[in-house]
Amino acid sequence: MKGDHERMRGSESLITVACIQFEPRVGRKEENVAESVRLLHLAADRGARLCVMPELCNSGYLFNTRAEAFALSEEVPQGSTTQAWIEVARTRGLFIAAGIAERAGGRLYNSAVLVGPDGYVGTYRKMHLWYEEKLFFEPGDLGFPVFALPLGRVGMAICYDVWFPETMRLMAVQGADVICVPTNWVPMPAQPPDERPMAVYLCMAAAHSNAVYVAAADRVGTERGQLFLGRSVVVSPAGWPLAGPASADEPETIYADCNLAESRRMKTLNELNSIMQDRRTDFYDRTLGSRIVP
Amino acid sequence: MKGDHERMRGSESLITVACIQFEPRVGRKEENVAESVRLLHLAADRGARLCVMPELCNSGYLFNTRAEAFALSEEVPQGSTTQAWIEVARTRGLFIAAGIAERAGGRLYNSAVLVGPDGYVGTYRKMHLWYEEKLFFEPGDLGFPVFALPLGRVGMAICYDVWFPETMRLMAVQGADVICVPTNWVPMPAQPPDERPMAVYLCMAAAHSNAVYVAAADRVGTERGQLFLGRSVVVSPAGWPLAGPASADEPETIYADCNLAESRRMKTLNELNSIMQDRRTDFYDRTLGSRIVP
Repeated sequence: MKGDHERMRGSESLITVACIQFEPRVGRKEENVAESVRLLHLAADRGARLCVMPELCNSGYLFNTRAEAFALSEEVPQGSTTQAWIEVARTRGLFIAAGIAERAGGRLYNSAVLVGPDGYVGTYRKMHLWYEEKLFFEPGDLGFPVFALPLGRVGMAICYDVWFPETMRLMAVQGADVICVPTNWVPMPAQPPDERPMAVYLCMAAAHSNAVYVAAADRVGTERGQLFLGRSVVVSPAGWPLAGPASADEPETIYADCNLAESRRMKTLNELNSIMQDRRTDFYDRTLGSRIVP
Repeated sequence: MKGDHERMRGSESLITVACIQFEPRVGRKEENVAESVRLLHLAADRGARLCVMPELCNSGYLFNTRAEAFALSEEVPQGSTTQAWIEVARTRGLFIAAGIAERAGGRLYNSAVLVGPDGYVGTYRKMHLWYEEKLFFEPGDLGFPVFALPLGRVGMAICYDVWFPETMRLMAVQGADVICVPTNWVPMPAQPPDERPMAVYLCMAAAHSNAVYVAAADRVGTERGQLFLGRSVVVSPAGWPLAGPASADEPETIYADCNLAESRRMKTLNELNSIMQDRRTDFYDRTLGSRIVP
């Protein structure tokens, strides 16, 4: 017969994580934020505690000019978007990680903001900029922060960041239990039609290698000729999808019950292996970043 | 009309890579080496230029005692196994990356040896030891070497090494075009029966993130109660299987035509993105290895 403690396992840090996949419209910020707030309330009705929304979900993604990107950006946390999300978080007891066009003086960042019932928590600024993002945004300058929340430790990464295994590794090394990924996945060359997007496999591999939850919220739709892939997914620390991949072309919110304590238990694989302690930092430090292939 | 140069693309550094999946028997070294030599000749008959064979494929894997492991190990390159492989390489014009139980004085290593038509090239010693390997083997002390061969640049990793994204990243940073993975994959908890083994997804993600070929040769069979997974695979720099995954339980050699120059072309994704230059080494260096989660 199992003891109380044994029976409680699996609910130690149990929360419902929601990835809210929708279709922001470029330039229509008020409408996008209103839609995000409506969807956050629906997720709260379904019991979500941590909600993830797509990259640049207040502004849209494909800017034609720097002036357009600048006009759609706002300061964090003072701007109206962050304030609207804080209000939902406060009234519904949510934590929210969502993509936002951030302005700081004359600089623009492709950022993710984290807010909760007590207000603003922190910001992640995309470290690896994809393609024409480089024309308007500055590369992130805040590193890879991990935020300690009442529900567990939360990191954020945005889209192309996940192509760099360093991103999630550095958050896991700092103790992240769940990594929220606001994203705008686009088609990659050589993607076989019968496979999940490569991005989903990158999330699965990163979740498994680091024993962390990964919650990726993608957008859908076509914006100024650019197709986005949908297929939002919540991955367990074992690396397998718990919810999703969602639809490729329809708005959809996916839900997964996650015991964030599992990301800590699962770091230990057996009495001889612990994935963080097995890292060969004695050799990594000598080599990593030391040579770049042209 | 395409020019000569354009038409030659795809065959610039074209070689056939073979992953030789078979079933070594623990303790029966002479038989195992004889079988590996027989299979290498068959692969050469089929046009293979680079052959990969499983982890510890001369000795078997599940040692009961240190004495047993010691007795099955040998010095590299003087030992009879490496000499046998060099002989095949020389007569058939092959390069061979294969797992071997290496002895150096009183130390044992779970190693991979690389040999070619001109003899011994180099050794990789497994950096991340899995489970009871830690009882008998020393952790690798040679780092993550990449060997420049006439056909391209070759790195090696062994089994659990692939669980550490640093492994393939560090080889890619040093310019590896193909990473050979002698392996003995074992079942992992929570593996859904209708999915490829997580190890295959780790190879796919690493190949894609680093734009390198990954050629993993696994073993099959059950040894002293331990099941091995088979499913050897050759993955393209885009991250998709070119050959395999092979059978889960039968010996099988898989072949893929690989243009190793592609691993260099594919580092550049577009006129603004190059995966090695997009790495944020300014921040990685500050964080990586600095803190370990207990």
